[in-house]
Amino acid sequence: MDREKIEELLGNVKAGKIEVDEALRILKSLPYEDLGFAKIDTHRDLRRGFPEVILCQGKSIEQITKIIEKLSSGNEFIMATKVNKQVYEAIRNMRADAVYHEAAGIVLIGKRKGKTTKKTILVVSAGTADLPVAEEAAVTAEAMGNTVERLYDVGVAGVHRLFDNKERLFRANVIVVVAGMEGALASIVGGLVDKPVVAVPTSVGYGASFDGLAALLTMLNCCTPGVVVVNIDNGFGAGYFASVINQMGEKK
Amino acid sequence: MDREKIEELLGNVKAGKIEVDEALRILKSLPYEDLGFAKIDTHRDLRRGFPEVILCQGKSIEQITKIIEKLSSGNEFIMATKVNKQVYEAIRNMRADAVYHEAAGIVLIGKRKGKTTKKTILVVSAGTADLPVAEEAAVTAEAMGNTVERLYDVGVAGVHRLFDNKERLFRANVIVVVAGMEGALASIVGGLVDKPVVAVPTSVGYGASFDGLAALLTMLNCCTPGVVVVNIDNGFGAGYFASVINQMGEKK
Amino acid sequence: MDREKIEELLGNVKAGKIEVDEALRILKSLPYEDLGFAKIDTHRDLRRGFPEVILCQGKSIEQITKIIEKLSSGNEFIMATKVNKQVYEAIRNMRADAVYHEAAGIVLIGKRKGKTTKKTILVVSAGTADLPVAEEAAVTAEAMGNTVERLYDVGVAGVHRLFDNKERLFRANVIVVVAGMEGALASIVGGLVDKPVVAVPTSVGYGASFDGLAALLTMLNCCTPGVVVVNIDNGFGAGYFASVINQMGEKK
Amino acid sequence: MDREKIEELLGNVKAGKIEVDEALRILKSLPYEDLGFAKIDTHRDLRRGFPEVILCQGKSIEQITKIIEKLSSGNEFIMATKVNKQVYEAIRNMRADAVYHEAAGIVLIGKRKGKTTKKTILVVSAGTADLPVAEEAAVTAEAMGNTVERLYDVGVAGVHRLFDNKERLFRANVIVVVAGMEGALASIVGGLVDKPVVAVPTSVGYGASFDGLAALLTMLNCCTPGVVVVNIDNGFGAGYFASVINQMGEKK
Amino acid sequence: MDREKIEELLGNVKAGKIEVDEALRILKSLPYEDLGFAKIDTHRDLRRGFPEVILCQGKSIEQITKIIEKLSSGNEFIMATKVNKQVYEAIRNMRADAVYHEAAGIVLIGKRKGKTTKKTILVVSAGTADLPVAEEAAVTAEAMGNTVERLYDVGVAGVHRLFDNKERLFRANVIVVVAGMEGALASIVGGLVDKPVVAVPTSVGYGASFDGLAALLTMLNCCTPGVVVVNIDNGFGAGYFASVINQMGEKK
Amino acid sequence: MDREKIEELLGNVKAGKIEVDEALRILKSLPYEDLGFAKIDTHRDLRRGFPEVILCQGKSIEQITKIIEKLSSGNEFIMATKVNKQVYEAIRNMRADAVYHEAAGIVLIGKRKGKTTKKTILVVSAGTADLPVAEEAAVTAEAMGNTVERLYDVGVAGVHRLFDNKERLFRANVIVVVAGMEGALASIVGGLVDKPVVAVPTSVGYGASFDGLAALLTMLNCCTPGVVVVNIDNGFGAGYFASVINQMGEKK
Amino acid sequence: MDREKIEELLGNVKAGKIEVDEALRILKSLPYEDLGFAKIDTHRDLRRGFPEVILCQGKSIEQITKIIEKLSSGNEFIMATKVNKQVYEAIRNMRADAVYHEAAGIVLIGKRKGKTTKKTILVVSAGTADLPVAEEAAVTAEAMGNTVERLYDVGVAGVHRLFDNKERLFRANVIVVVAGMEGALASIVGGLVDKPVVAVPTSVGYGASFDGLAALLTMLNCCTPGVVVVNIDNGFGAGYFASVINQMGEKK
Amino acid sequence: MDREKIEELLGNVKAGKIEVDEALRILKSLPYEDLGFAKIDTHRDLRRGFPEVILCQGKSIEQITKIIEKLSSGNEFIMATKVNKQVYEAIRNMRADAVYHEAAGIVLIGKRKGKTTKKTILVVSAGTADLPVAEEAAVTAEAMGNTVERLYDVGVAGVHRLFDNKERLFRANVIVVVAGMEGALASIVGGLVDKPVVAVPTSVGYGASFDGLAALLTMLNCCTPGVVVVNIDNGFGAGYFASVINQMGEKK
Repeated sequence: MDREKIEELLGNVKAGKIEVDEALRILKSLPYEDLGFAKIDTHRDLRRGFPEVILCQGKSIEQITKIIEKLSSGNEFIMATKVNKQVYEAIRNMRADAVYHEAAGIVLIGKRKGKTTKKTILVVSAGTADLPVAEEAAVTAEAMGNTVERLYDVGVAGVHRLFDNKERLFRANVIVVVAGMEGALASIVGGLVDKPVVAVPTSVGYGASFDGLAALLTMLNCCTPGVVVVNIDNGFGAGYFASVINQMGEKK
Repeated sequence: MDREKIEELLGNVKAGKIEVDEALRILKSLPYEDLGFAKIDTHRDLRRGFPEVILCQGKSIEQITKIIEKLSSGNEFIMATKVNKQVYEAIRNMRADAVYHEAAGIVLIGKRKGKTTKKTILVVSAGTADLPVAEEAAVTAEAMGNTVERLYDVGVAGVHRLFDNKERLFRANVIVVVAGMEGALASIVGGLVDKPVVAVPTSVGYGASFDGLAALLTMLNCCTPGVVVVNIDNGFGAGYFASVINQMGEKK
Repeated sequence: MDREKIEELLGNVKAGKIEVDEALRILKSLPYEDLGFAKIDTHRDLRRGFPEVILCQGKSIEQITKIIEKLSSGNEFIMATKVNKQVYEAIRNMRADAVYHEAAGIVLIGKRKGKTTKKTILVVSAGTADLPVAEEAAVTAEAMGNTVERLYDVGVAGVHRLFDNKERLFRANVIVVVAGMEGALASIVGGLVDKPVVAVPTSVGYGASFDGLAALLTMLNCCTPGVVVVNIDNGFGAGYFASVINQMGEKK
Repeated sequence: MDREKIEELLGNVKAGKIEVDEALRILKSLPYEDLGFAKIDTHRDLRRGFPEVILCQGKSIEQITKIIEKLSSGNEFIMATKVNKQVYEAIRNMRADAVYHEAAGIVLIGKRKGKTTKKTILVVSAGTADLPVAEEAAVTAEAMGNTVERLYDVGVAGVHRLFDNKERLFRANVIVVVAGMEGALASIVGGLVDKPVVAVPTSVGYGASFDGLAALLTMLNCCTPGVVVVNIDNGFGAGYFASVINQMGEKK
Repeated sequence: MDREKIEELLGNVKAGKIEVDEALRILKSLPYEDLGFAKIDTHRDLRRGFPEVILCQGKSIEQITKIIEKLSSGNEFIMATKVNKQVYEAIRNMRADAVYHEAAGIVLIGKRKGKTTKKTILVVSAGTADLPVAEEAAVTAEAMGNTVERLYDVGVAGVHRLFDNKERLFRANVIVVVAGMEGALASIVGGLVDKPVVAVPTSVGYGASFDGLAALLTMLNCCTPGVVVVNIDNGFGAGYFASVINQMGEKK
Repeated sequence: MDREKIEELLGNVKAGKIEVDEALRILKSLPYEDLGFAKIDTHRDLRRGFPEVILCQGKSIEQITKIIEKLSSGNEFIMATKVNKQVYEAIRNMRADAVYHEAAGIVLIGKRKGKTTKKTILVVSAGTADLPVAEEAAVTAEAMGNTVERLYDVGVAGVHRLFDNKERLFRANVIVVVAGMEGALASIVGGLVDKPVVAVPTSVGYGASFDGLAALLTMLNCCTPGVVVVNIDNGFGAGYFASVINQMGEKK
Repeated sequence: MDREKIEELLGNVKAGKIEVDEALRILKSLPYEDLGFAKIDTHRDLRRGFPEVILCQGKSIEQITKIIEKLSSGNEFIMATKVNKQVYEAIRNMRADAVYHEAAGIVLIGKRKGKTTKKTILVVSAGTADLPVAEEAAVTAEAMGNTVERLYDVGVAGVHRLFDNKERLFRANVIVVVAGMEGALASIVGGLVDKPVVAVPTSVGYGASFDGLAALLTMLNCCTPGVVVVNIDNGFGAGYFASVINQMGEKK
Repeated sequence: MDREKIEELLGNVKAGKIEVDEALRILKSLPYEDLGFAKIDTHRDLRRGFPEVILCQGKSIEQITKIIEKLSSGNEFIMATKVNKQVYEAIRNMRADAVYHEAAGIVLIGKRKGKTTKKTILVVSAGTADLPVAEEAAVTAEAMGNTVERLYDVGVAGVHRLFDNKERLFRANVIVVVAGMEGALASIVGGLVDKPVVAVPTSVGYGASFDGLAALLTMLNCCTPGVVVVNIDNGFGAGYFASVINQMGEKK
């Protein structure tokens, strides 16, 4: 489209319908992306089959529904994160096809297109209370077209359950580790596998967990390489990143 | 080998040379990894062509040389990080083939085997003072068999240099962003590309940079997905992780 | 007035009605500002057309209404910040002319006198959730007699929207940048323009945003000069400062 | 120049020397700023008479001299900050015209062009130990073409010296306040004047000053509006910002 | 009493009624204070006219009323701090003579005995929102037998009100300064007077006030000597300490 | 059992019923603990008479009841910590034998087997508000088969009560010290006794207690050896650890 | 003097030598303190017998000697704090009468006038490493005309030495407690006496003492009233404040 | 001795040589411990065979040697910790029998008496750089009469070495875990064994390890019970505590 606009402009210059000076002025005032700044296109490529994402936390219901309304005209697939029940109900009033993944706090609207890769992302979590963040990561990765496995409640206190499932660890292509409190699970998993590990500290814990700071520092200081970290409670970011690297080398 | 040991044991049981009780006792006392805990082997696979790594910071010269001596018997390729000149000289006294990448603070001993992937890791850095960490990432990635490009000194104050090189950003398969002070470069790069970005905060800066804390928090809070973070000044970790994901889907 | 008081005193000394000792005693006991400490007057100058300001946060409704009552007798123009709905209603019961800028949490009472400068303050904000702080800055600047433009929702994740509006950035006289999470928008804007940039970190975000600390540190470490910082969520302070420098060199 | 390049291109399209497709391809591959992204030019405008700046802290002498060598070919006026004696000597070996402002840690090379505004920037500092940062601000502002006055050692313990000089406070157009320890001086000055105040916390102090954190927080929480803050010890940033707003409304 | 017990014991030893060994055993098992450890007595002295104090924060209503019940049997004068309305009502149900100082969050039960010193404690506070802590200090000091004056709302933004009242500052024997946000008021008062200043940081503020941390650090770093600090929001502690030093040298 | 499985396997190998290759494959796929990793058994030993523990904080009522349901089938003795009233009621609906220790926030289900050691654990607490954490430690230790004594409300302000009870301090085998605010009680007790002291900082306090950080740091810096620390408010952890060391050397 | 100046002015007005307008102009331009702002005088009163103080930390030797030179002309008694040996030698070169209290890091020049009060300040310190700060407090208090006693090395690990000296605690009029590590000594002393306690946290310690932060927080959270706090390592501030309150009610 | 003093006193009372009043006065003025406060004696018991300990960090050589000189007269066994080479040499000049455990930074003077328990303390450490702290713990425990085993360099990156040594973990009576960086080793060991684990965070690491803070928080948040924590780098404290609990139930 934008390409056409510029082609047309150049055509008009060639045809003498527009003076050089005028063409120059128009070129300068074109919106940035009209000049073909590559990201836009790549993004469009990337987003085939991937949802538009709305972070609902910190936004009013009014703001959220307005955004969804705007997106509804153009996008086939919309994803809202950090959605509580009240927000979900407001969304469903607008879009009857909205599906609420309550444990993940995610609402999906419309259908993802495109195939699902068979390479597995394994989401591992430490404790029951880490589940919302783990599910946010898992549902995000599924929404982006990945096969996702879950291995929950295998924290240090029940670490033998982790060892019992070592085959699943070895089989996965990418591993997301979700843990609060001391966050040591990322270190243990990172020490067992040679797959990329995306670590998500959670704010689960009390006292000196300082709302996730302890787990965050643990994961950043992880002495096995192969472990990277996202923000506290950022299940979405981990699922997204895991998806990006899980599909590397694949045709989109 | 270990596999063979167990096969031999089972063979002996079958042949009646060893009693069941005795076999049971032996099985239990075998070192853990002898039972085929997968990591060992995969690691061996992984490490074809990849060096043993020694973090020299916090170790005495005596400890470092002792470790290198031990590794020298078995490994063909050794990498030492956070190496200052004095440590380097001690290493070269033992191993004349040690090569010092001074800007990176890395010493490589021996030769890497295996081919180099053509997929590119682009190491982007913000300022001149971030160079040691950027080089640590770049040399690590090279030592692991990757094609590495460098795009240095493109921080916010000179951000047009980044935009001038957007083609290189789009061409890269994985991007490592190294930045101190406010660390905003990771956000900008993450907002421009849809490639995985590994962000490395550095301790470069003064005052409220608090030895890299500011850059670390910036990168963790990055609001574009697709950006993950490693420890402050951890160029090695970033180069290592970038290498792992750059070679995903490749035959090793 | 105070000037007159002293003149009168000196006149009485001259006329011999008051002894030197007595005059000395009176001079010493005069209230400080009676001696013409300049601030009072300048302030009066400055405040032509500018409201008295009440920060409502941390004050009880009773305290707020009492203050407004007191101010109502003398001031023509009153501004209350960090006002929630309940507080607003209490105010409107006293002053029917109170206008509530709900998004900004600001109530304006009475009418500003004086002209509005045509030089523009541009308020740029990163995300939808930053809107209350951005509006606080914008409404404050308007109340102080400035032409204000708004450029919202142009954070890093949608940075092309910022580039699309570069003309507005270049046209502005002063720019206020409001951003939470990683706060990198201030760095980007500061890298694009040579206008003074007043950066306002917001407490928007979660996890390692630590209630605005991440954005604050980012902005303080901004490596392009020309960026200064106010307190987290301090939209009023940014709007006020932007107004002061926007009107520099103007006749008041 | 770039403008000419595009004009030439359009001219060639018009003349039929270049096909539309080819022109489109060339347009896309032009470096970003060639499309007239305004900053470059404005910067050039801005920088008439203003030095190129090098922050020396964190850079090796070799890196610094290399940068100065490169800048020497094109720029008439170069400024290096956070320069210690050893670095200065290395610079003087290259450029005999380098002038060292030792107290400020600044080296100026070449001569500034352009006139000096008569509007005054007043640099106020709390204690003797804050002098290096105060001088960095003052020398920066002078190098940018401002009339600078200094009012030093007027911290809280000797606050009467500040009151004695109130006329200088009222006369100044912009005030820079430099203070370590508790940093309260910015609050006091901000409470006395209605001029823009740029506050610079310094790392001067001990114990719970936590390397400038105490002063930084004090200044950020300043309850008089009209005070903005830069990074700890960032005298350069304060001097630069003060200069930008001091010259607002002036012809450049 | 205890003294008597030991006298009796020694008398019995003297009289041969108790053997030395037995006396030794008894001496060792006596409660500590029975041996006349001085504090008990001094305390009793000190407390003539001073209330028993209960910090209600963190205690359940049940616990509070139980404590008051126990104290009611013996003490004539009881003081409860950090009391909200609900707690007050529970107290009044027990003790009809309970008086609620609502602004201070203090309940006084019974009557203080002893005279009131004429030397004045002046409680100075910065803003309206600091009032509860200021009142806690003032009411505590009054309850301990001091003449208390209040000088409120004289923070930096209205610092001329402080200067207008300098006579009251000079007349006071001890000054308590209560301030949140940047807490600079303590520095200013400390710079004006040579009386002991007890500074109370409050949690009033937002953003980088970090719940009183900013004010606390400011006050600790105060560069005029003669200023000491108590915990954030600890109006009681400041009032208590001010009382102790206000009555130094007085007969009790 | 597992032992039998392997014995059977080896028997089959011996008998020629299973080939060596097949046996090898089976050995590798056995769950980890089947190989006799000792912890499982020891744990079973340890847990004779000790409850399964569920930390209820951060879990939904639904999750908690599901876990208890699962545990109810196998375990005779279940302990739930950080239980509020609402959770307790949900538990009692399932298990009528649930006993709620309200002050401790602990629910015990079923009966502990095994004897109770006569060696005493003394739980010492500083203030009334520390009681919930102290009770959590005490009830945990009782549930694990220890004789527990309580010495409450002996904080620094009433330290003579501690000295009065020195015999109880000397008689105890292990001491748990629970204190918020400044946490100095651990230091004092540690300075008086030569018994192991387990210190529990609590989040009791306000202002610069920073939710238990002050008490935590105090206890970690304790200059008498013999004092160790657990997480803020972790009464359970302290009671558990105290129990383990109290029963050292005992037959289980 | 200044008083005389104004008297003269008024006399001239009376005598008709100066017009009222002219007198008004002169009055306004007089330096602030000329108008009799009380502090100056009181300070002069206060300072009878008290030294001018120079904090040497953060100042260059050149700056220090310049200040002493200036003070030497007018003051009879000068005190320099945080003085190392090198600084001391520079001072002695100027003033042969300089006396170095090496343990305290204090240099005294000239002789104090005025009597010494017999009321005692007791300086109590926890460990040998706290000695420099304790001595700074003690020497300061002595220099200000107080009788000072020292009770050192009575920290928690050797707390019985404190109890052995309880008589000295009870006899003192004011107590300064100096302690690093966990800083619990202030709590213990505060719990034993009813005298005002000035607590000085020191940076002595390692690990989680975080350069004095642990001791600072402990002291701020002290649950016995009667304890106030100064900055970490601020022995001078404690000695000064102790002196001020020790001499309350005394004729000066 | 003291016992004798009191017996003598009582004897004199009995014999009528001393009046009851006089005896009472003497009793009160006796040093505290003379009254038989139990700790002294128990300590003496405890210390049979245990050294007097001097923490050398923060003390001058002069102070250290003076302390050792004083202790040399009475004690047979002295231990100095955090000793560098220079301090060691000063000690050896006084006491030729001083033995320097250089890796541990410990000097032992004289010979320990008493037997060595056969129950084992296992000191486990994560990395080579943690060795000094691990050795400090190990040598301390040996000096206190324990059998100590060492299992070093088994951190997460080489966790299979830990699993290989599981028998040693199970055999130990008490385990000390020493780890820097992310400190996850304590969690892993705590998850494997049911022995008491004393965790020592070390300051080993860089960047977001923040001098041991990361490891400290990890260990405090450890979600397996049975793990307690001492100060960062406090090997001595861990060795001491491990010794106390290792010898519980033993005759001394």
